[in-house]
Amino acid sequence: MDFKKMLVDDQVKPYLLKARYGVEKESKRVDLSGNLAKTDHPKSISQQDEHPYIQRDFSELQMEIITPVAETLEELFNYLAAIHDVAYRSMGKNEMLWPLSMPPQLPEKEENIVIAKLKSDENVRYRQTLSNSYGRRKQMLCGVHFNFEFGDELIQALFNAQSEIKDYIHFKTEIYLKATRNYLHYRWIVTYFYGASPISEKNFFEKDLLNEAVRSIRSSSKYGYTNSNDVQVSYSSIQNYLTDLSSMVKKGLLSAEKEFYSPVRLRGGRNAAELEVHGIRYIELRNIDLNPFETYGISYEQAEFLHLFLIYLLWKDEGENCDEWVKMGDVNNDIVALEHPLEPTKFEAEAKNIIHEMEHLVEILNLTVSDTLFVHLREMLMNPSKTLAGRLYEESEKSSQNEVATSIAKENYKKSWEKPYQLSGFIDMELSTQILMFDAIQQGIKVEVLDRQDQFLKLQLKDHVEYVKNGNMTSKDSYVSALIMENKTVTKKILQQHGFRVPKGEEFQTIEQALRSYDLFSSKSFVVKPKTTNYGLGISIFKEGANYEDYQKAITLAFKEDSSILIEEFIKGTEYRFFVLDEKVYAVLLRIPANVKGDGNHTIEELVIQKNRDPLRGRDHRTPLESIQLGELENLMLKGQGYQINSIPENGKIIYLRENSNISTGGDSIDVTDQIPEDYKKIAADAVSALGVKICGIDLIIENTEVPAANKNAYGIIEANFNPSMYMHVFPYKGKPRRLTMHVIHYLFPELLQSQETTN
Amino acid sequence: MDFKKMLVDDQVKPYLLKARYGVEKESKRVDLSGNLAKTDHPKSISQQDEHPYIQRDFSELQMEIITPVAETLEELFNYLAAIHDVAYRSMGKNEMLWPLSMPPQLPEKEENIVIAKLKSDENVRYRQTLSNSYGRRKQMLCGVHFNFEFGDELIQALFNAQSEIKDYIHFKTEIYLKATRNYLHYRWIVTYFYGASPISEKNFFEKDLLNEAVRSIRSSSKYGYTNSNDVQVSYSSIQNYLTDLSSMVKKGLLSAEKEFYSPVRLRGGRNAAELEVHGIRYIELRNIDLNPFETYGISYEQAEFLHLFLIYLLWKDEGENCDEWVKMGDVNNDIVALEHPLEPTKFEAEAKNIIHEMEHLVEILNLTVSDTLFVHLREMLMNPSKTLAGRLYEESEKSSQNEVATSIAKENYKKSWEKPYQLSGFIDMELSTQILMFDAIQQGIKVEVLDRQDQFLKLQLKDHVEYVKNGNMTSKDSYVSALIMENKTVTKKILQQHGFRVPKGEEFQTIEQALRSYDLFSSKSFVVKPKTTNYGLGISIFKEGANYEDYQKAITLAFKEDSSILIEEFIKGTEYRFFVLDEKVYAVLLRIPANVKGDGNHTIEELVIQKNRDPLRGRDHRTPLESIQLGELENLMLKGQGYQINSIPENGKIIYLRENSNISTGGDSIDVTDQIPEDYKKIAADAVSALGVKICGIDLIIENTEVPAANKNAYGIIEANFNPSMYMHVFPYKGKPRRLTMHVIHYLFPELLQSQETTN
Repeated sequence: MDFKKMLVDDQVKPYLLKARYGVEKESKRVDLSGNLAKTDHPKSISQQDEHPYIQRDFSELQMEIITPVAETLEELFNYLAAIHDVAYRSMGKNEMLWPLSMPPQLPEKEENIVIAKLKSDENVRYRQTLSNSYGRRKQMLCGVHFNFEFGDELIQALFNAQSEIKDYIHFKTEIYLKATRNYLHYRWIVTYFYGASPISEKNFFEKDLLNEAVRSIRSSSKYGYTNSNDVQVSYSSIQNYLTDLSSMVKKGLLSAEKEFYSPVRLRGGRNAAELEVHGIRYIELRNIDLNPFETYGISYEQAEFLHLFLIYLLWKDEGENCDEWVKMGDVNNDIVALEHPLEPTKFEAEAKNIIHEMEHLVEILNLTVSDTLFVHLREMLMNPSKTLAGRLYEESEKSSQNEVATSIAKENYKKSWEKPYQLSGFIDMELSTQILMFDAIQQGIKVEVLDRQDQFLKLQLKDHVEYVKNGNMTSKDSYVSALIMENKTVTKKILQQHGFRVPKGEEFQTIEQALRSYDLFSSKSFVVKPKTTNYGLGISIFKEGANYEDYQKAITLAFKEDSSILIEEFIKGTEYRFFVLDEKVYAVLLRIPANVKGDGNHTIEELVIQKNRDPLRGRDHRTPLESIQLGELENLMLKGQGYQINSIPENGKIIYLRENSNISTGGDSIDVTDQIPEDYKKIAADAVSALGVKICGIDLIIENTEVPAANKNAYGIIEANFNPSMYMHVFPYKGKPRRLTMHVIHYLFPELLQSQETTN
Repeated sequence: MDFKKMLVDDQVKPYLLKARYGVEKESKRVDLSGNLAKTDHPKSISQQDEHPYIQRDFSELQMEIITPVAETLEELFNYLAAIHDVAYRSMGKNEMLWPLSMPPQLPEKEENIVIAKLKSDENVRYRQTLSNSYGRRKQMLCGVHFNFEFGDELIQALFNAQSEIKDYIHFKTEIYLKATRNYLHYRWIVTYFYGASPISEKNFFEKDLLNEAVRSIRSSSKYGYTNSNDVQVSYSSIQNYLTDLSSMVKKGLLSAEKEFYSPVRLRGGRNAAELEVHGIRYIELRNIDLNPFETYGISYEQAEFLHLFLIYLLWKDEGENCDEWVKMGDVNNDIVALEHPLEPTKFEAEAKNIIHEMEHLVEILNLTVSDTLFVHLREMLMNPSKTLAGRLYEESEKSSQNEVATSIAKENYKKSWEKPYQLSGFIDMELSTQILMFDAIQQGIKVEVLDRQDQFLKLQLKDHVEYVKNGNMTSKDSYVSALIMENKTVTKKILQQHGFRVPKGEEFQTIEQALRSYDLFSSKSFVVKPKTTNYGLGISIFKEGANYEDYQKAITLAFKEDSSILIEEFIKGTEYRFFVLDEKVYAVLLRIPANVKGDGNHTIEELVIQKNRDPLRGRDHRTPLESIQLGELENLMLKGQGYQINSIPENGKIIYLRENSNISTGGDSIDVTDQIPEDYKKIAADAVSALGVKICGIDLIIENTEVPAANKNAYGIIEANFNPSMYMHVFPYKGKPRRLTMHVIHYLFPELLQSQETTN
């Protein structure tokens, strides 16, 4: 097949960068001093042995982070970031992840390297076998496995651009075989650029001590993690590959197919037999050291390079004798792996040529890649100290590799704890959704973002699928119950019919109608509001009745916001938000308007700046609290109280900057769940049930919580919200945090609690 | 108590017109010639014996229409109108309702008047007793019962405006007792204005033939439907009333309390004992003849009069001796009832004074009433031929009462069949909701409109409550499944994951992003559209690929409508709408763009006018089809085909006036349910299930329905609609009507089908 011609085909070119990616990344848990952790895998990670994202590898302290299949590199790195956040925060504040492929100092006695405490005997036995064959020290090497699949449309287009192979599956397999053989042949270039295991720490080598620093201990056949030399498998065809593999197992050279530690593993189907039938679906590149300088062990540019490199390897002619070609690759790779990290490589000229050809290819194929990619590659080629091994070695020379790694680990650790309400990779999404995704990942639920702007998630636990929008719109609520909550008049009617106290009032469709009812309200406490409110616009409150003129103004104002308005009795008291889930109140929140507390020294402006320093405060609903503003409304409010922004309020005096208590305008959220009497919680839960709703934030006005809820007019129900914010309960300004997102997860997946009960 | 003072209290006045109303209206079913129907109560009316709105009275052919309690007169008349529509269309095209209180010619033999065939033996036995006591002929008198309750807030305000009575329930009872006694005393004025049973038809009187015409046979104690003279009940207090009533039953003068045929019945609680404990809740005015000139047996003005009259009666002093006062009313009413309909009444002067006082009251109490009310009352007073009895008598003189009544009945009949898709009283609501309400009423389900503008209904069958919005948003669908359908990208992803064919494509958030993907689409058939479409705005279709400039234009256009756009493969074929309910396809519709068919004679404009004459066509979605327009777009479309609006297309030639096939722009709806092969229906039903949806309109494009659905690319799914219009299936332009609304009712209330099965 003439790949050079096929690749430049106009029907092929648009699809060249379409691919699917996945990363598996192992790292060791260490304590804050960089010593191997002595603890078990974190208990907060559920479904431990079947967790889709966070697993244990050989050892109990070897954490493996597994991304789902991603359609773009952006998506891949988003998941990597998110799963790292979950891993870090699940480990707790006393542990971090070791950033190197090479382990920190190992125990003197090998048996003190604890094998992963998996439930399955078979899995434990397999690790025991590995321990016997390779020793536990070598199993402590960590790395990144990069799973790569060419886009379906690309393979289809390539298939259409040739006529030699008639069978699509056969064709696909040939594509991957060519890329694999060339990858094996040329992989020394990956080792040169990205090898990052130059020296070992104490107790890694029992004997065979390596005296000189190298590019990659892990990738060298002598010191790294490889099968015995007797294990020889041909890549000339899928049949030969499979025959060789099975013969290795038969001969006892491998305990199982999965023990074949090739730098490239051919994937497709659950076992070798399936691979033959369905063809190669993707390949797993396994020769990648952890990038110490990247929080997630691999950089975006590295991934981009690998993708381009694979396209290049498809394009690039290969040697006539397949097996020779691959074997040559092993030899060359060993040479590069064992070169000193600061020395130029023996293959510098060839490397330059490859980079040149790759760049040329990018041009003729019209591919979009990062501007800096080739700049960096060339830099590394010209200056070995810019390669990963070079950088790590040079840094380590200043102190020690151990110190460098510990300090990098600490940086990563800090970053992951800095904004505990965020989920890295998804910080543009709504906070409640981020927190829910965190919890879902921790619970071992597969999370797919169906629509990012729309906060639309697919959650899956085994065969059980749930769709969730905005963190709390689920299959548990009926469509009409959400519509009931959306309509204030209907909500009120239903609550009233069920005997709950709601503000009395009427709905009006015209100004005239509303004016005619003036007598009904004139001498009462009442509220005029648009039927559908939007952040409180168009609402007028008359606590002591109103004259006709003000009444008229209020009505006109409300009609500006909606074609229907409500005039309602004003219920006096404090407003509480009850979060109800499945007939139970899980949190009660008091919201207090934006305010500062005087200290007799600072101006209001200074106090606001101080209060805004709280890392929980920020802008645009991407933090649990909003920064207090000092805009027009706040200034007006201050003026009404006889203050200006440079007034210095006396010590202890609370100054309010807003009339409304919304968190979105700088209000404080205070959890009072434990302080609210049960009878009010029952009212809230029963009212939500009366609406037929399962997940709801319901607002009660209570004049005095010490008065029994059954008393006449003890409370009034103001509103039921079908999309209640959860984050304000999870990260309140004051009071106990309530992890509502986790309750939602358990409500959607009750089997989680059952399986946890079984486990404990 | 000084009612005159209490009523003018400022706290009382705003509430004077707050009340609750209900009407029970009996009429006899007759054939189209005006002869008593020989048929049974209509089978299409479910739950016959427990139907909340349509019942049988004494006879099988006596239909009783019962409104629910209404908070306003508007609401009352809306229900009256709606229930009449259901009654008429349930009777079928061979029957109508007799508009008079007096029956048409009765059978010679009394036993040929068939007693209602009720299931309950007790109910049949009771009617047998009545038949024995009063004879069946008298039972054939029909009338209106007007139930009236003063508003709670009014009674509360009146209660607060006095200090004599401390107990609220006692106070309320006294209010109603005063109104009742005065009503009984002055009811002759109602008989004068609205009495409408001047003469009888053949076989009504066995003997005692009345030779002269009167105002109201039905209201006279001698000829009407009254208890024996021995039945005497005091209205002096609730205790005396109840003691007397129970003594009448004990003495055998009444077979049961309900046999007490007073012109006013005191109501509250299910029986007399409850009435004593809970007090009077409302009163039932029973002395109202059917108004022959009103389709619903009573006019709005009459109801307004009764309300005002009751306020007046509260205000008006009563005689000192209660029982005398009431008895005097009986005597006076008999006088007026038996006066000749064209003679002035003996009490003309007193009537004038009452009307004068009522008008004065309206003024000082600041009440809003119809402008014409007092004009009409005074007209009737000055000219007896303007009273109902007078009008009916005069009309009948020209031919016969029988002919007049038959012709009125026919008018009513015609009206009820004129627009069979409408539900009178609710014609401003969406068509699908009107049809669903019709079906619900017919099925004996209580219908409450919670929010009229929002198409929000409460449906109730015994204890089973269902809320429905827009006719098909129900508790059966989950909240998130509706949100899935609302989001095209999510819908497509889920369908694709389940193996259905959806147009391939991508979502873009920026123009730049979309432009960069030009190569992916340039040579294909594709569609550019905003993610959220709104009546097809911003959509561009490229059936043969596009040049870069057109591509750019289309993208810019789509981004004007939404912040995200989709570029999708264009799937060729015919679009069908499948209506799926609970995993079953109930209807398939083909929509054809607005068109006319040439006849070789008429211009396109004339053909459009002709086609628009179809009563199914109208404007603003309040008819099953929309009128075809001849606006800018239509002219452009014609021009493109080489026509103008005054072109005369040849015979048989179809001229399309629109590109799009929406019914809302004049398209034709064609039911093809029986023509679509099962395998496509299965695709539609399975796709809806994959989305987790129960009620859905799903659009499939099929190139050739004769090709099996399993074939590659046989179909494509375009969209799933969470609020699919139902009316277009119920009243299609061509093809078999599909009563989807009834299926929705049965889906929500499966117990209906079970009970029907039990019955049959």
